[in-house]
Amino acid sequence: MTDRKIYKPKPVSGFSEWLPEYRAVEQRWMDHIRKTFESYGYANIETPAVEELEVLTAKGEVDKEIYVIERLHKDENEKKEARLALHFDQTVPMARYVAQHFSELTFPFKRYQMQKVWRGERPQLGRMREFYQCDIDVIGIDNLPLHFDAEMPAVIYECLMGLNIGRVQIRISNRKILFGLLEALGVSDTVAVTRNVDKLEKIGADVVRKILNDEVKLSTDAINDILNLATIHATPKNYKEVIGAITARNDAMRTGIDELMFVMNQLTHLPEYAVLADLSIIRGLDYYTGTVYEARLLDIADFTSTVVAGGRYDDLAGNYINKHLPGVGISIGLSRLFDVLKDKGIIKPGAKCPTQVLVVLPSEDRRADAAAAAQQLRTRGMNVELFHKPAKTGDQIKYANNKGIAHVWFIPDGDKPDHSVKTLATQEQTAADPATWSPPKD
Amino acid sequence: MTDRKIYKPKPVSGFSEWLPEYRAVEQRWMDHIRKTFESYGYANIETPAVEELEVLTAKGEVDKEIYVIERLHKDENEKKEARLALHFDQTVPMARYVAQHFSELTFPFKRYQMQKVWRGERPQLGRMREFYQCDIDVIGIDNLPLHFDAEMPAVIYECLMGLNIGRVQIRISNRKILFGLLEALGVSDTVAVTRNVDKLEKIGADVVRKILNDEVKLSTDAINDILNLATIHATPKNYKEVIGAITARNDAMRTGIDELMFVMNQLTHLPEYAVLADLSIIRGLDYYTGTVYEARLLDIADFTSTVVAGGRYDDLAGNYINKHLPGVGISIGLSRLFDVLKDKGIIKPGAKCPTQVLVVLPSEDRRADAAAAAQQLRTRGMNVELFHKPAKTGDQIKYANNKGIAHVWFIPDGDKPDHSVKTLATQEQTAADPATWSPPKD
Repeated sequence: MTDRKIYKPKPVSGFSEWLPEYRAVEQRWMDHIRKTFESYGYANIETPAVEELEVLTAKGEVDKEIYVIERLHKDENEKKEARLALHFDQTVPMARYVAQHFSELTFPFKRYQMQKVWRGERPQLGRMREFYQCDIDVIGIDNLPLHFDAEMPAVIYECLMGLNIGRVQIRISNRKILFGLLEALGVSDTVAVTRNVDKLEKIGADVVRKILNDEVKLSTDAINDILNLATIHATPKNYKEVIGAITARNDAMRTGIDELMFVMNQLTHLPEYAVLADLSIIRGLDYYTGTVYEARLLDIADFTSTVVAGGRYDDLAGNYINKHLPGVGISIGLSRLFDVLKDKGIIKPGAKCPTQVLVVLPSEDRRADAAAAAQQLRTRGMNVELFHKPAKTGDQIKYANNKGIAHVWFIPDGDKPDHSVKTLATQEQTAADPATWSPPKD
Repeated sequence: MTDRKIYKPKPVSGFSEWLPEYRAVEQRWMDHIRKTFESYGYANIETPAVEELEVLTAKGEVDKEIYVIERLHKDENEKKEARLALHFDQTVPMARYVAQHFSELTFPFKRYQMQKVWRGERPQLGRMREFYQCDIDVIGIDNLPLHFDAEMPAVIYECLMGLNIGRVQIRISNRKILFGLLEALGVSDTVAVTRNVDKLEKIGADVVRKILNDEVKLSTDAINDILNLATIHATPKNYKEVIGAITARNDAMRTGIDELMFVMNQLTHLPEYAVLADLSIIRGLDYYTGTVYEARLLDIADFTSTVVAGGRYDDLAGNYINKHLPGVGISIGLSRLFDVLKDKGIIKPGAKCPTQVLVVLPSEDRRADAAAAAQQLRTRGMNVELFHKPAKTGDQIKYANNKGIAHVWFIPDGDKPDHSVKTLATQEQTAADPATWSPPKD
């Protein structure tokens, strides 16, 4: 061992891993999110981590950094295959999946996906290069009822509220309203406008006004119309008056207002803080065409970032199949959320191991009896370790303490004819029957 | 849509994906395996998909094909970082993890890991290039009790039996026995011998005898000794006589025999078919030093491949840390197992979606009532969809049938003052209260 070269490992920038006590929390989060998705009827799929590069870039230039993969020991003479790359989100692979398996799926197709995605970021930037996303999407053929636009925020609310990280607010808009107004105003460079409206909250109305005037060269009337619209906020309580009061200048605006009203109307069962119609929400992705969402946490200091985002798109898989497949979807940036809340100390470590009961091994010749007790508890649904060697009882209890195991089990021994169990937190020890005992609920 | 270039996607060789109804079965499998691992106290970790290439190859030449990753848009001027690659198993990343987090872990460290791994195989070979492995390992400092060697087969037995894929047989040996014999016989080229003994079952004793004679140039006596040992089989019923009858020619053999006896002795609670001491088992990996395992299914025609393998290694992480960390571990080749049994039709498709109840939406003006019923059932733990638009009842039931949803729910309507639920399989419809009704267990 002494003359061996040691390669001391260090973390690779952008690739996280957790100790077991934090991974246990991440698992609990993912179990809860999965359960919530399934409670609304979403079916799981998993796609390979790898797609053909041509699939990932079928839409044209991709603004995400892509990792391509290559065999280390390439044989230059072998038959060339298409270049392969790691997926950078779950939407493109889902679109490819839906196109490829189109005839075998039932529509509207409701699916969830909880996988890692990769971004080939420069290491210096310190950005996450591997992270989990938890996505739901619904895909229809030719049309997709607004029902699903309204379902997304309800699902997300339940997902995030179950994580015990404080209140969540889902902000909702419909792009048809602002784009309709821009059309009515005769604004041709919609990107220049929406890019700045999107920053309204960050940079303030005065700065946006100045940019729209100085750089985009809009008239004061047009700017007033745009800012009057984009600064509208409405809650599930007052949306009927507030959104209802918006003047529709064309069909696009009318449709957008109706759609937003429909969505808000389905969310009145949620607490008032949880839903906000906010007409400044645009979302950068150019494929959104109607409803758009952003969610953030309300009770975490210095953390106003978007942790959930999504929207409606009119044509999901047109690059892969000659069908018109509208969809609506939303994505939880799980790893980023977890990472930030862990750093802030809001996520408390869970158990170091899943073991609920440690069965003491008093001596080698009692091994069969101790093993039988452990197996009996295990069969009844508990997580149980049999201590791994005969040792002083104190050492075995110390192991349980170090690993955070709550209960220590003693088989009958000498003058003690009963099994007994000791709860380490209270130091209470009582007689117990392995056929009936259960750990107290916390 | 008409003038758009369509890139028709096709499966990429070696990368599998399933329809939702098969993914549901894979999820059930993984849930069961996870639950079994946790019932023995194994804690989960996840490591990044990506490691530094130097970490993966720290031991020297790797016989697995490796995928390296690279940013698509490399900036040649940017600071170079270490070459990165996708992990090809979970053992090397775990060793790196244990070395890196050594001071924060509690030993013996029992961990499980269920992640995808990647092999940069040539596409022509048709081999899996992405697959799930489900691993448990226990790592000790300086020494690790044999208790854990005996625990591995018990855990694996429960994992595989719970999948309803017939009987499983775990074959066990201890490399110290055969290697001890070779030492006693003065055989220096142990690799030449063990490589052929490993193939005993496949090629038969006569062929092995001929090779050891013609190519390895062993004496007839030595060959007899080796084959007499390697053809020994013993069950949990007769192992005491059979293994106990082996003559130990040196300390290594003695230790190996004692260890194998200990392991077999802990497995007498398993059915006789499930455990077989088989002295021909070697396992290719050169780091195994004691107990070795292979498991296969007994009831699947034309499928005798090893689906589970593992063993004891004396020094896990010596390439990354100056500590002596012995371990024992075992790995289920989940994707390969799933893939083969799916192709053979042994795995039946599960549900297309998790939905248990479809609530009928009779008309737009009854949406709030229908949504409330759906939410009430959901809150009580059921997976529920509200139909997504007002439509004829027949169409809504057809949707439930297409998706395999078992129950259809009707809210009170007109002359029917009660909620009612119809079970599609039986066509029975009965009054039901959303506050108390539960789906019948299948």
